[in-house]
Amino acid sequence: MLSSMHEHDGPLTRLRRGHEQAVLELLRRHGPLSRAELGTRSGLSRTTLHDIVAGLTGSGSVVAGTPQAEVRKRGRPVEKLSLNPAAGAAVGIDFARRAVHVAAVNFAHEVIGSASEAHAADLSWPERIDIADRLLATSGAVHLDALSAIGVGVVGPLTDPGSENARSQGIDGLPDLLRKRFGVPVVLDNNTRLAALAEAVWGAAKDSSDVLYLRLSHGVGGGLVVGGALHRGRYGLSGEFGHITVDPAGRPCDCGGTGCLETRASLDAVLFRYREAGGRADDLAEFLAAAASGERCALDVLTRVGHDIGGVLAAVCHAVGPGVIVVGGELAEAGPALLEPVQRALRERLMPLARRHVDVRRATLGDTGSALGGIALVLHESPLLSHYPRPASEENA
Amino acid sequence: MLSSMHEHDGPLTRLRRGHEQAVLELLRRHGPLSRAELGTRSGLSRTTLHDIVAGLTGSGSVVAGTPQAEVRKRGRPVEKLSLNPAAGAAVGIDFARRAVHVAAVNFAHEVIGSASEAHAADLSWPERIDIADRLLATSGAVHLDALSAIGVGVVGPLTDPGSENARSQGIDGLPDLLRKRFGVPVVLDNNTRLAALAEAVWGAAKDSSDVLYLRLSHGVGGGLVVGGALHRGRYGLSGEFGHITVDPAGRPCDCGGTGCLETRASLDAVLFRYREAGGRADDLAEFLAAAASGERCALDVLTRVGHDIGGVLAAVCHAVGPGVIVVGGELAEAGPALLEPVQRALRERLMPLARRHVDVRRATLGDTGSALGGIALVLHESPLLSHYPRPASEENA
Repeated sequence: MLSSMHEHDGPLTRLRRGHEQAVLELLRRHGPLSRAELGTRSGLSRTTLHDIVAGLTGSGSVVAGTPQAEVRKRGRPVEKLSLNPAAGAAVGIDFARRAVHVAAVNFAHEVIGSASEAHAADLSWPERIDIADRLLATSGAVHLDALSAIGVGVVGPLTDPGSENARSQGIDGLPDLLRKRFGVPVVLDNNTRLAALAEAVWGAAKDSSDVLYLRLSHGVGGGLVVGGALHRGRYGLSGEFGHITVDPAGRPCDCGGTGCLETRASLDAVLFRYREAGGRADDLAEFLAAAASGERCALDVLTRVGHDIGGVLAAVCHAVGPGVIVVGGELAEAGPALLEPVQRALRERLMPLARRHVDVRRATLGDTGSALGGIALVLHESPLLSHYPRPASEENA
Repeated sequence: MLSSMHEHDGPLTRLRRGHEQAVLELLRRHGPLSRAELGTRSGLSRTTLHDIVAGLTGSGSVVAGTPQAEVRKRGRPVEKLSLNPAAGAAVGIDFARRAVHVAAVNFAHEVIGSASEAHAADLSWPERIDIADRLLATSGAVHLDALSAIGVGVVGPLTDPGSENARSQGIDGLPDLLRKRFGVPVVLDNNTRLAALAEAVWGAAKDSSDVLYLRLSHGVGGGLVVGGALHRGRYGLSGEFGHITVDPAGRPCDCGGTGCLETRASLDAVLFRYREAGGRADDLAEFLAAAASGERCALDVLTRVGHDIGGVLAAVCHAVGPGVIVVGGELAEAGPALLEPVQRALRERLMPLARRHVDVRRATLGDTGSALGGIALVLHESPLLSHYPRPASEENA
């Protein structure tokens, strides 16, 4: 009764998706099953099951075949349905400011390839897509024909993030260009948020479903994963930790505000503070090398930067109570010299009940985190492809 | 095939709940339907539908009967299923520090009664339950026999909030006492968070599914509603806006921290600031009266308090991007004299992109907000009773 599914109704649409999920879950758990077995185990009527299976085979997620062992002595051999081992390969692309990153996973959810290429900041979208296409073609065993969707990270806030309709001024035309090139649906989100999702699925916080991710780079931003899903906020403006005020009398910020965390903890800001304190470094690498060699001035700057960061994170912790805090971006390469002051400030600022739960970790996914987040977006959150288990939830506290 | 439902498996449990929801939704939308009509419209097999309907009639949510008009000339009259108008009445109880509040809704989701009674702070749980029972008995058309569950708000943080297993030191034995008295399942959560949920469902933010609720009372706390659901955080410690630091060099807070918002904006703190500035008031009522009469000193204090509050709210807004901010608690009775400075501080501190979305409103549900939130918890979030539609989501920005 497909007609019943067409009532434009939340519960019934969810119902169909639930049917699909249950069928895929049964095939994943039990291996190949006949239609009759699926009917018994799922409780679905023959008509409904026929529709659901037709949709799943049509999309390439499920294949029908007759296992050798099943050829009976008499009568028609029983056709069995199983997951298509070639299907479900998903791809993520991160269009960063000056680089394209790609990653791909197979149906077993294993990362089978990732690659990056730097480019000039003013490259056009078609040129950047060429880079992505080339990187994907050389990244190994990806059957692009079997792709269900592509998850794409872009810079800046979006309207309708996480969907096929995501839009922002900078990306006009990008979704259409990608759809034409790859022939599959495309979902977009902010690339820093995708890095947050990736750390919660594959990275430093893969044991947690409530994650606060902070990225310390040219800008300071982040993302929240709540109950295993990306939190986006009402206007696509969540996770803007870099624009939380540290000092209302501080320096003006690019955002138009004053004394934001970004004016204290971005790469430029940190180098500025270092030079102000008498340090000498032409770039981040030199600064990090000075800190690694134990130079007092560099370590003092990291202590103060960590204190500012910890204060902001404490405020966010009181608000949302994350299970794990993940710190990424180039500045995180400073390691404990930065993260220990962050933890100290967190402990100072958090109410005692919350203090013992502070768990600060360094991000593990590096440059391809956002591309992996694009995959996670497709596999975990998109209605386009729902046959992927959520990450195991944390043990109860 | 009930057996298929017993596999301890997320998708299949969700599937059954989806079936129930779909059946209830069809009955709500179309009125009485025969089993055959339900089968056609839901796409469920006869066996599955039989199980689902048996469960729903067993719980009293659905009744079977033969409408007069349906008695056919020949053959067996067709039995129709419909929603039980006496069923689904849900009750919320808020055990506040010094008062019990109750509220009840009928199956049409209308609030049919609410009541409150103050008591001494040291009253035992059995005595408080007596009060709740008495208030409910006199609150009107509630058929306690038809109750599916009771949602209960309590003071302080809980482990496993929002569930039947919720526990905290202060409430040992309460769930069992309630279950014995009322004979139905009991779900518990922090009462300030329940007030947040209630404002998002029935109150000042009923047009929004992403809500930041701040309560300014003897303590300062709050709650977040994310995508229509209560956000609880990893350790049941979210929404602790009162313990976000305003001034690291400020006064010690009861929580063990220093310079928390609570040391600036709780009722005691506000009266302290007022007296420090030369004002004279024995209690909040006198202070609010002074402000209402336009007294400079009282208004100045509210301006400074509002500034502190706005600064904290800006930080939380950057982190979670709420659609609406609701301010409740006794201090909110100061109205615009408090809320306008809050909005000014928010605009100052928010990044420009976020500024235009600031929507600060005064709470509308008053004392019974948390009891109503208990009902919302049962109706919206509890697996015990799922036949209640989510609030309409906001229009897209």
